[in-house]
Amino acid sequence: MRIGIIGCGQLARMMALAGLPLGIKFSFVADSGVDTDLSCVEGLGIIAPWQPGQSIEALYQALGKPDVITVEKEQVDLHLVQQLETYCTVRPSAASITQCKSRIKEKQLLAKLDIPCAPFTYQVDLAQSAATLGLPMVIKSLDEGYDGKNQWVVHDNDSLNTLAASENFGDHLIEQWIPFDKEVSLIGTRGHDGDIHFYPLTENVHRKGILIRSTAPAKHISPKMEAAAQDYMRRLLEAEDYVGVLAMELFVVGDQLLVNELAPRVHNSGHWTQMGATTCQFENHIRAVAGLPLGATTLTSKTGMLNLLGVAVPPMKALSSSSSLHWYNKESKPNRKLGHINFTAADYVSLDQQMDLAETHLY
Amino acid sequence: MRIGIIGCGQLARMMALAGLPLGIKFSFVADSGVDTDLSCVEGLGIIAPWQPGQSIEALYQALGKPDVITVEKEQVDLHLVQQLETYCTVRPSAASITQCKSRIKEKQLLAKLDIPCAPFTYQVDLAQSAATLGLPMVIKSLDEGYDGKNQWVVHDNDSLNTLAASENFGDHLIEQWIPFDKEVSLIGTRGHDGDIHFYPLTENVHRKGILIRSTAPAKHISPKMEAAAQDYMRRLLEAEDYVGVLAMELFVVGDQLLVNELAPRVHNSGHWTQMGATTCQFENHIRAVAGLPLGATTLTSKTGMLNLLGVAVPPMKALSSSSSLHWYNKESKPNRKLGHINFTAADYVSLDQQMDLAETHLY
Repeated sequence: MRIGIIGCGQLARMMALAGLPLGIKFSFVADSGVDTDLSCVEGLGIIAPWQPGQSIEALYQALGKPDVITVEKEQVDLHLVQQLETYCTVRPSAASITQCKSRIKEKQLLAKLDIPCAPFTYQVDLAQSAATLGLPMVIKSLDEGYDGKNQWVVHDNDSLNTLAASENFGDHLIEQWIPFDKEVSLIGTRGHDGDIHFYPLTENVHRKGILIRSTAPAKHISPKMEAAAQDYMRRLLEAEDYVGVLAMELFVVGDQLLVNELAPRVHNSGHWTQMGATTCQFENHIRAVAGLPLGATTLTSKTGMLNLLGVAVPPMKALSSSSSLHWYNKESKPNRKLGHINFTAADYVSLDQQMDLAETHLY
Repeated sequence: MRIGIIGCGQLARMMALAGLPLGIKFSFVADSGVDTDLSCVEGLGIIAPWQPGQSIEALYQALGKPDVITVEKEQVDLHLVQQLETYCTVRPSAASITQCKSRIKEKQLLAKLDIPCAPFTYQVDLAQSAATLGLPMVIKSLDEGYDGKNQWVVHDNDSLNTLAASENFGDHLIEQWIPFDKEVSLIGTRGHDGDIHFYPLTENVHRKGILIRSTAPAKHISPKMEAAAQDYMRRLLEAEDYVGVLAMELFVVGDQLLVNELAPRVHNSGHWTQMGATTCQFENHIRAVAGLPLGATTLTSKTGMLNLLGVAVPPMKALSSSSSLHWYNKESKPNRKLGHINFTAADYVSLDQQMDLAETHLY
């Protein structure tokens, strides 16, 4: 079996590394304008260069006629994905990717399925949005939204007036700013037969909009909250007839959960599953898209993940008996995700201590 | 960092797959006379063909000047290993590999370290050996001994006389036949700094001399027996200043343990660690030879391994939520090790049921 992956970054790399043991072969679509650093996936399969306008037939051939195609990101050329669907199965489907690529389509889907999220406006000007939502509020572009990119918080009327004078922002999604207690995420996976498995909720800490740390399971989450999050994701997975891993970011406000964002793919906040779950998110995504039975998502230990942002060389000295390193082979740039370390411990105190120590040492 | 591996089989494959996530690069020595099927390691690094008599300098260059070299088997050209040691570190050392390559050197080492093993003779003729050891007894060649190859059991005087008339067998190792209750193995790993970690004892079942099933932890093993096995291996690791994974096969006779064989490498009876331990044997071998801290060998769940011998295609249908597949991409031949399935369960009953079902389905 051969699986094609659209994208050549670390998520493609880790999907391939999780699928190779099963005897599956991989191919990667390198969009010439976007995928400039191919070092993550070099040596792991066929790399097929492509750019918009080029033949899809030729690309499909160059990929070695994969049995199924998947994506490592939602910011893909949707026309490419739709055209590839005429050659082989694409999982998740082009329709599911489309829903998550656009912030407004995503919000509309959440609203349609009665899934709680921050109140929002769309195609409404700034002043009216402020009147509806109150301040602060968050202005978000409709796509290219990940790692906190392309979004601005408006805190007061002065800023609002300045912004309103410069641009209408009616083509943006405008959300009420949520004073959340913390951010958590749910990683779930659905097989082609409808079987669904969830990992425990994960607690995430961001730094300048970029994920820096995850802890699983998230602390102080009641069974009721866990069940609510799973219920929301189940509605999404079933409504979309979704196949593969889906990631859902949520705000915790008291004992309530509000869905913030979806990602139709494996997710940075699920990297801990490589060390702390029976089957990691990467293998489960591969199993799902390959039409294989899903693996158990059972937690094997309290686990944490620390991203290596802009760290120049693999921090081999940070390794210990209770940690493991994943290095992506990318060229180092400030704030770039170059690798991560997973940590395991019997309790949160020991886990936090290890992660604090490593973070202090690295940053 | 680059690691060179002598050998191109499934053990080389799984070491590379465990080391790639750390950002380590791999090269493989393909001995032209032995490593005819390279499909296990294709795509995972540089494959450098070599045959005895060829330049070691050229081989070292072709391997991309690795920082360290290791082996996937003890049946290697010792001259090659010794010569490579003049170019870079070899772990375990040529001296350690030499000890385990020859059955008699291995027995002499065990005897020297007071480690219990089956009584044996060497350079003694068959009749005298039978007088010393009693019948049945086992005749073993001095090397090329793995998967039950090159050994014969002599059950009675008639067979003894027939064999004695045909050949002297004085250059063979002759052992007392041990009526063991079961076979277990211990996988241990030692870092360059002397740190030692052991996995729990594993229970093994062979079919026609080839391992078919492993279960970890082994059943009905007292803490005293576990401690004895660890003590034996610790003596070996320290006596040899050994770096890397060492495997030790033992016979269980009542509450006694007798060491049967050693392997200076990752071992088939440790494949279960991919699913049932915090760090698998492959990653720990790579960490050890790379000079990194070892990973925890803690058991995460009761785990079993079923070898896929001569199975023509990857048995994707045998996969379940509590099992994972490892397929080696080798050409199928009868009884050839083509892959394995790992199983996990909360208790032995459920584990055995799953493995029985898969075994019945496959064979």
